[in-house]
Amino acid sequence: MEKKMSILMFSGDFDKALAAFILANSAREINVEVTMFFAFWGLMLVRDPNELSDEDKTLWEKMFANMTPKGIQDLPLSKMNFAGIGKKMLLEMMDDSDTPPIDAFLKGAINKGVTMKACKLSCEVMGFSDKELLDKVEIVTAEDYLRDALESDIQLFI
Amino acid sequence: MEKKMSILMFSGDFDKALAAFILANSAREINVEVTMFFAFWGLMLVRDPNELSDEDKTLWEKMFANMTPKGIQDLPLSKMNFAGIGKKMLLEMMDDSDTPPIDAFLKGAINKGVTMKACKLSCEVMGFSDKELLDKVEIVTAEDYLRDALESDIQLFI
Amino acid sequence: MEKKMSILMFSGDFDKALAAFILANSAREINVEVTMFFAFWGLMLVRDPNELSDEDKTLWEKMFANMTPKGIQDLPLSKMNFAGIGKKMLLEMMDDSDTPPIDAFLKGAINKGVTMKACKLSCEVMGFSDKELLDKVEIVTAEDYLRDALESDIQLFI
Repeated sequence: MEKKMSILMFSGDFDKALAAFILANSAREINVEVTMFFAFWGLMLVRDPNELSDEDKTLWEKMFANMTPKGIQDLPLSKMNFAGIGKKMLLEMMDDSDTPPIDAFLKGAINKGVTMKACKLSCEVMGFSDKELLDKVEIVTAEDYLRDALESDIQLFI
Repeated sequence: MEKKMSILMFSGDFDKALAAFILANSAREINVEVTMFFAFWGLMLVRDPNELSDEDKTLWEKMFANMTPKGIQDLPLSKMNFAGIGKKMLLEMMDDSDTPPIDAFLKGAINKGVTMKACKLSCEVMGFSDKELLDKVEIVTAEDYLRDALESDIQLFI
Repeated sequence: MEKKMSILMFSGDFDKALAAFILANSAREINVEVTMFFAFWGLMLVRDPNELSDEDKTLWEKMFANMTPKGIQDLPLSKMNFAGIGKKMLLEMMDDSDTPPIDAFLKGAINKGVTMKACKLSCEVMGFSDKELLDKVEIVTAEDYLRDALESDIQLFI
């Protein structure tokens, strides 16, 4: 029977997102089923940069949507970000060592069939609609996350 | 047989605490047994704001107790806290979307029978006595945490 | 059959490193097999302070190696670091409560047979060679981590 991994992606940091997508891609390579559940800051990873919208947003939600990363390439580092200099440094180092960019890992995860879900409550609080997230992402409840996680062999909170 | 979830709550951030308590409440709704083990900054979530005390504390412990959050409502955001402005914004957004406040999730977890434990070593280092924590919380060792986590179906480090 | 715990150590924070090594030591006390996989900032925990080298490093990698912690005692706190004052405070409090220093937990983990691995991709991106890491640490791929984690009873991302 197929093994399963469940990742609850809470953070909106570039480095943690990279770690999560590398794990998701590697898991698919060895035929492990993967579900990623994006909650809270993790929603920033699956915002569709081409579908930004202020429609149906309260004033707070508009401000929030404008102050936060517009997609995966926009994410800051969790440490040593130094207003973007640290991230630039990391990107150069990734390039030097021929590591693919983060959106390649995101696309890889989608192409390899990683299941991607977003937390309903987080979307409601932050005011993100289904349309503003990547097509592949389905909005579900915390209970749905738990039912899936209970049947997984690995559960990580990132 | 009943399924089990074990959460090691290490962080003292408002947003991560909210995530943990939403998961704990949701798990109880679907009859999953839940144990939360509060360690290090996670102890701030279960300090009893009505039982602050300087008794038996060293000078460092007194300073520490005064510089850190006095209970769950006092916690800062992990990101975008901006000296409290970001947190205020999030609280407004939670209110607008009719999300209950964090202490409702804490009380919900207690009422629904979530087992709450605090890390003995963390309490000793930080100088918190049993009396300063919420009544529901029992102080246990890291080994106790591990024995419980080994029998759980989900383990998360938050 | 022996139980197993797998820790993916992503963070380079003193407090999180302490938590991870306390868990690893406690697990060994109750005969749980432990694997720690150091990735990204977690590599800072297993740099050998006596084997710093600029050999074969690009300019970015040299800068990076110099700006980051040189070993486990060098790590900053995740919260309240205040340019080192918060960490000094914590070290005093650990000393007052007769808690061993962090390198004692690291040595304890090594002596008790905790398996220690470092992430190949992280080493390549950051420019760390095998020689610059503690002797006990072996460099492996994310797939190796996953295969081990799939067979563990507890998996934590710290």
